[in-house]
Amino acid sequence: MPHGIDKILVINSGSSSLKFMLFSMKTETMLAKGVIERIGSADATLTYQRDGEPKSTEGVAALDHGQALKQASAMLIHPARGVLQSLEEVEAIGHRVLHGGEEFSEPVAVTAAVKDAVRRYFDLGPLHNPANLQGIEACETVMPGVPNVAVFDTAFHKTMPKHVYLYAIPVELYEKYHIRKYGFHGTSHKFVTEAAAAYLKKPLNELNIITCHLGNGSSLAAIKNGKVFDTTMGLTPLQGLIMGTRSGDIDPAVVFYLVNKGYTIPQIDKMLNKESGLLAVAGTGTGDMRDLVNAAGKGQPMAVNALAMFSHRIALYIGGYYTLLGGVDAVVFTGGIGENSYSARQAIAAHLRVLGVELDVEKNKSTFGTLATISRQGSRTPVVVIPTNEELMIARETFRVVTGTR
Amino acid sequence: MPHGIDKILVINSGSSSLKFMLFSMKTETMLAKGVIERIGSADATLTYQRDGEPKSTEGVAALDHGQALKQASAMLIHPARGVLQSLEEVEAIGHRVLHGGEEFSEPVAVTAAVKDAVRRYFDLGPLHNPANLQGIEACETVMPGVPNVAVFDTAFHKTMPKHVYLYAIPVELYEKYHIRKYGFHGTSHKFVTEAAAAYLKKPLNELNIITCHLGNGSSLAAIKNGKVFDTTMGLTPLQGLIMGTRSGDIDPAVVFYLVNKGYTIPQIDKMLNKESGLLAVAGTGTGDMRDLVNAAGKGQPMAVNALAMFSHRIALYIGGYYTLLGGVDAVVFTGGIGENSYSARQAIAAHLRVLGVELDVEKNKSTFGTLATISRQGSRTPVVVIPTNEELMIARETFRVVTGTR
Repeated sequence: MPHGIDKILVINSGSSSLKFMLFSMKTETMLAKGVIERIGSADATLTYQRDGEPKSTEGVAALDHGQALKQASAMLIHPARGVLQSLEEVEAIGHRVLHGGEEFSEPVAVTAAVKDAVRRYFDLGPLHNPANLQGIEACETVMPGVPNVAVFDTAFHKTMPKHVYLYAIPVELYEKYHIRKYGFHGTSHKFVTEAAAAYLKKPLNELNIITCHLGNGSSLAAIKNGKVFDTTMGLTPLQGLIMGTRSGDIDPAVVFYLVNKGYTIPQIDKMLNKESGLLAVAGTGTGDMRDLVNAAGKGQPMAVNALAMFSHRIALYIGGYYTLLGGVDAVVFTGGIGENSYSARQAIAAHLRVLGVELDVEKNKSTFGTLATISRQGSRTPVVVIPTNEELMIARETFRVVTGTR
Repeated sequence: MPHGIDKILVINSGSSSLKFMLFSMKTETMLAKGVIERIGSADATLTYQRDGEPKSTEGVAALDHGQALKQASAMLIHPARGVLQSLEEVEAIGHRVLHGGEEFSEPVAVTAAVKDAVRRYFDLGPLHNPANLQGIEACETVMPGVPNVAVFDTAFHKTMPKHVYLYAIPVELYEKYHIRKYGFHGTSHKFVTEAAAAYLKKPLNELNIITCHLGNGSSLAAIKNGKVFDTTMGLTPLQGLIMGTRSGDIDPAVVFYLVNKGYTIPQIDKMLNKESGLLAVAGTGTGDMRDLVNAAGKGQPMAVNALAMFSHRIALYIGGYYTLLGGVDAVVFTGGIGENSYSARQAIAAHLRVLGVELDVEKNKSTFGTLATISRQGSRTPVVVIPTNEELMIARETFRVVTGTR
């Protein structure tokens, strides 16, 4: 093992939750994972699971992220249930950080300056960046001396050219407030891009693909020579595709219209982020693709229409990216929906015949969370399912930063 | 001539202007046209031009749209400068009306109920519908007994299927407020669609094309079997492409972000509609494509970037529509930019090679406001320039309604 680094802890810290996952990098194996929920309340819980074992949930004291991390660490070194002899075995900690603004095109070792930058982008990622910083600071307190690495959701998209990331709005809004397209899910798009290069046996820097990360949040990325050329999300994760509860693209004037009708901006913000998307149009009472597919299978008109809306929007962007890239080596599906919903994949692929996509119907139906080619042999444009693994990607990035092997 | 209808007056009424054009439908010839500007002010002017003659401008009294129309009518029957013996020769009047909401998929004869509907959509077309109604009422007063026909900018788009026109927002916003995608420039998209069918010698109901109306306002339409399947504009003309002064697509959360920074909704509305688009990013001080192309030709970086932004966005949608339509019979350019800017057409077409678009560089350069194929012979996807004529289309629609020959 180069540089002797093995155990890496991955932290995804939310406003009232802290997810953790411990990896052995020698084998890229996940050893244990868990989540502390309802941090700050009297009924916080820790859910924990060693690899291959059943999960357990119990009440814990976790009034802040520091206490939450202590509970997690205690479990990791628990004599009976832990996976470590001592916390000192943890050689580095990788943190998911939502918004790296314009500064970070790569993961970085956390310094005071990096924390300042994470703070500076609080207003670009108001729900996530403050919580991400709390997670970093909890680690600094609870596990002093262990290097922390920030892995930004926006970083992989940093290669977009200026004519792609700029909005056609007054330039001072970009210069003063950094309003532009950033893109998100970067860690996932990067993971599946690297995996696709290996699977398709193509050098990464010659790989042109469209990565479709479809989950509760969804985004596409146009990958040109292994790098992001365009993506569907924007300043925030609201733009682009129709998602579980997010509207994706709408006429911005809808906001003006609703204000005229008496809605407040916080109401509209909440509506478009939390009460829209499939939740709003599927008629199932949830934003879950499985419920939608069930309802559509029974012929419920709203669900049938919602699946058509969802796949129309995705096909629009796939066609656009295919065109801008001048053709692609593959269309790659990943994420909860992309990996598991053959119905969603089929509905999308049905639009793509003119791009040379021919789905193998049986192969598609039998592919559920596994790496597989689901297009027919000879399909001019192959379609591939690649399970994503954002936590492993964060661990890999952390390894690369700490060992200087980027 | 069936039904004996010949002279049709076309009116495009704005809040402080009234454009008029008189057609002889026997030959589909424009006889005279003009515009009264600054209606309601002391320095209103009438600009007037007989077909083939120079135009003249003079001060007139026009404190309201009724007076403005009287000035126009007086000129049309002026002994020396007019084109009519008497106003009674005008057999029908066609009015451009911006927003027909969900009710009108065709032009209609104006009745009290139609005027109520135009009124009902004031809040969907706040700048245009009130002015359009003023134009209609002026005609009713000044030329009583002459049938008026309303030709809606939204009507041709009415064939979009539900999964295309619905936004993924709470259904009650559609049911209660009719918030959905409508599309605009319908009269132009329809004109060039009919012209393309004739030019390509294909039955209209088998014609699949992408119509690119590129002017100060710009929109694309995906035409499937002669009907609109999708279009880039939305609830209002703000959505979609980058335009002269409009942003087109942005993350709707940009609005929330700007509100947090202290901007008011009216400021943001004005900014995105009047101070964005090419005006904001070209660095030329105007939203005019000619200025942009000049500046880009001199290598000015902002202009070069703005042309790249403009063409990237258009190519994204052309690729998307090509895919959703399963290939097309042609890509059609129209509008001020589409007809006249070979540089803009070339920048767009450069992205479309994988769709089988091969531009004839010389043919493209020499095509300026004329009907022509500008792709190479054998180009798998032909590219055609078709000058639009919205006023003639309104006259044709008016003729069809009045004579019952739809």
